[in-house]
Amino acid sequence: MKNILILGADGYLGWPTSMYLSNKNYNVVATDNFYKKKIIKKLKINSLFKTPSLEKKCKIWKLKTKKKIIFENIDLCDFKKFNLFFKKIQKKLGKINTVIHFAEQPSAPYSMISPYTSNDTIYNNLIGTNNLINTIRELSPETHIVKLGTMGEYGTPNIVIEEGWLKIIHKGRSDKFLFPRQASSIYHTSKIMDTDLLWFACRNWKIKVTDLMQGPVYGISTKESQIDKNLTIDFFYDEIFGTVINRFVTQAAIGHPLTIYGKGGQTRGYIHIKDTLKCIEKAIENPPTRGHMNIYNQISETFSINEIAKKIKLAASNLSLNVKVKNIKNPRNEKEKHFYSPVYSKLKKLGFESTKLSPEILTEMIKKVLINKNKIIKKNILRNISW
Amino acid sequence: MKNILILGADGYLGWPTSMYLSNKNYNVVATDNFYKKKIIKKLKINSLFKTPSLEKKCKIWKLKTKKKIIFENIDLCDFKKFNLFFKKIQKKLGKINTVIHFAEQPSAPYSMISPYTSNDTIYNNLIGTNNLINTIRELSPETHIVKLGTMGEYGTPNIVIEEGWLKIIHKGRSDKFLFPRQASSIYHTSKIMDTDLLWFACRNWKIKVTDLMQGPVYGISTKESQIDKNLTIDFFYDEIFGTVINRFVTQAAIGHPLTIYGKGGQTRGYIHIKDTLKCIEKAIENPPTRGHMNIYNQISETFSINEIAKKIKLAASNLSLNVKVKNIKNPRNEKEKHFYSPVYSKLKKLGFESTKLSPEILTEMIKKVLINKNKIIKKNILRNISW
Repeated sequence: MKNILILGADGYLGWPTSMYLSNKNYNVVATDNFYKKKIIKKLKINSLFKTPSLEKKCKIWKLKTKKKIIFENIDLCDFKKFNLFFKKIQKKLGKINTVIHFAEQPSAPYSMISPYTSNDTIYNNLIGTNNLINTIRELSPETHIVKLGTMGEYGTPNIVIEEGWLKIIHKGRSDKFLFPRQASSIYHTSKIMDTDLLWFACRNWKIKVTDLMQGPVYGISTKESQIDKNLTIDFFYDEIFGTVINRFVTQAAIGHPLTIYGKGGQTRGYIHIKDTLKCIEKAIENPPTRGHMNIYNQISETFSINEIAKKIKLAASNLSLNVKVKNIKNPRNEKEKHFYSPVYSKLKKLGFESTKLSPEILTEMIKKVLINKNKIIKKNILRNISW
Repeated sequence: MKNILILGADGYLGWPTSMYLSNKNYNVVATDNFYKKKIIKKLKINSLFKTPSLEKKCKIWKLKTKKKIIFENIDLCDFKKFNLFFKKIQKKLGKINTVIHFAEQPSAPYSMISPYTSNDTIYNNLIGTNNLINTIRELSPETHIVKLGTMGEYGTPNIVIEEGWLKIIHKGRSDKFLFPRQASSIYHTSKIMDTDLLWFACRNWKIKVTDLMQGPVYGISTKESQIDKNLTIDFFYDEIFGTVINRFVTQAAIGHPLTIYGKGGQTRGYIHIKDTLKCIEKAIENPPTRGHMNIYNQISETFSINEIAKKIKLAASNLSLNVKVKNIKNPRNEKEKHFYSPVYSKLKKLGFESTKLSPEILTEMIKKVLINKNKIIKKNILRNISW
C-alpha cells in the first residue's frame, strides 16, 4: 500500500483528494495548519456547507468506510517542525511515496487586498514550498512531489501555450526552457516562483516533481463527499475564494445577476473537481525519474466568461430561474479579448477522460445551492477588491 | 537637485554608489538595516578593511567633501516602518526621483548553506522587493526603481543571451517575453523571482523599473573611496561574499593557490566596480516611462575562470609572486564547459565606456591586499559550502 502525504488537506481540493485516494487504497496522511480557515474567519467568509474539523472528518471517514486517513496539524512554513514530522511519519509508515502539495494561499483577490496579504501570499507559498523541497532532498529524495500549479502562470500569451516547456530556436541555436510565464496577480506570480524553485530543486538535487497547471475548478461534490453529509467538501461562492463557475452558480440560485467582469471575453481552461482527482491520480501513477519535472496542463475544456454565463443562464432556466447577466467594471487588470490556445494532451495520453460542463452538472449544482441558500452571506458576493 | 534613495547603502556596491552619486550632486539618502553585517559577524567573516559604521562614514564624507549623505537605519522587510519612512523623507526632501535597490542577500553560497539560509534569502529578497513596490505604487508611482539583478538569472543557456527580452515566434504567431531564466542557486533563483515581481508590478501598477543584470563585480577602490581611509569600501575575499576575481587576487597575494572550481571553463561576464557606478548613473539618467521595465546586461567583458586565473598569475609575477593554480572539486552544480554569448550593448548605446581587466588593475589590487594581508582569516578562503 503506497503512502501519500497530503499537505493542505483541509481545502477545497485537499479534502476530496484525501478521500478519493483513501478510497483507492492509498495510505493517506492528511495535514493542514488551518491557515485558510483563519483567513476566511478574519474576512467573514463562509463555505456554503458547515463541515466538521478535518480531524473529525477523518474519524467519520473511518467509521463510514473502514479506511483510515491519518490526520496531523502541521505548519509547512515551520521547517524544523515539518522536518521532524516527516521523519516521524516515515519511521511509522515507511517511505512516503508521494507528497501532494496543496498547502498554498490559493486566491488571486486575497493576494491583492493589501501589501500585507501580498506578503503573506509570497511568504506562505514560497517558504512552504522551500521547506518541502529541503525536507524531501534530505530525508527522502525518491519521494515524488505533486504540486498544484495554475494555468494562470502562463497568462494570456499571443502564442499557443505548450505543456510546461518550449523549445526555442534563436540565431541558429536551440535550447529547451520552461514555457514563458507572465501572470496577472501576486498569487499567480507566487506560483511562477514556486515553479522556478521546484525546477531549480529538480536540477540541483535531482528530486522528482510534477507540476499540475490547473485551470479554475468547479463542482460541489465528489463520489466520496456524498457518502455522508459530514464528508461534504467546502464550497466557496464569494469573490475571494470562489472560482467563477461556483460563483455564477450561486448567483443564479439566489437571483443575483451574474457578475461578468468587463466584456467577458476572458477565456480560460476549466476543470470539474472530479476530473482534478483523476488527474492527480494519473500524476501519482506516473512519477518522473529523479531530476525531472513533469508538467501537465490540467484542464478539460476552455470557455470565455460570456460562454459560461450563457450555460448557467440556460441551466437555471430548466429550474424556472430567470437569471440576469450584468457586466460590471472589471476589478482585475486582465485582457478582456485575447488569443487563448493551450495544449492539454499529456494527461489524456495517460488515460485521463475528461468531464464536460453539461446543463445537468450545472442544474445539479444550482439545486444544491438552493437547498442551502439561507447560509449565503450576500455581501460576500462582491467585495470590491480591485487591482 | 535630484533625490536618490539608496537601499542597502552599507554594502560593497551600496557605499561606493552613495559616494559617487553624492559627488555628482545628487541628494543621496543612504539606508541599511545591517542585515549583511549581522550575517558576516555570525559566520566570522571579515572585510579586508575595517571601516566605520555607515552613519560615521556619512559624517566623514560631509567633513571631507562638504556634501551631505543622509543616513537612516531602516528595514525594508518591515512594510509599515519603511512606508512611514518614505512618507517622511518625501515630506522633507520632496519627490524621491530614484530608488536604488541593493537591499538583498547577495551571496549564492550563503543561500545554499542550509534550509534556514535559503529561506532567509527568499524572505529577505522577495518581501523586501514587494514592500518597495507597494510603497512606490502607493506614495510615489513616478519614482524610478533601479534594482540590481544578476546575469546569473539567465544561467548558461545554449542560445545567445539577449538583453532582458526575447521575441518568440511559435506555430506562426509571436509574442515578446522576459528572456528565459534558469539559475543555479537559491540566491540566483530569488533574483529571477524579484524580476517576476517587478515585471508584474510594472504591468499592473504602471511603475517604472530598471533591472540591471550584472555580472560578478571586482575591484578594491573607487575614486571617492580614496578620498579618506575611512571611506574605504568593503572588500570580501572569502568563499561566501567574495566574488571570484577579488578572491583570486587575495589568494595570489597570500601565496594560496588559486582555487579553480572543477575544470575552470565556466564563462561569465565581469565588471569593475567603477563601471558599476557608471552603469547605475546611466540607468538613473534614462528612466523608462510608466509601466515599462528597462533591462540591461551590465558587464564589461567575458572570461572563463581559467582565463582569469591566467591573468592574475601574470599580474602577480610582475610583483615577483609565484602563483600556483589548483583545480579543486567544484562545490557548485554548474556546467564547466558551455556556450556563453550574452549581448551587452544597451548601456554602451547610452554612452557607457567600459574598463578592461588589465594587468595594472590586478597588480594594484594585489598590492592593496598585500598591505593588509595580516587581516586575512585564512580559513575563510575555503568554507566547503557545496551544492
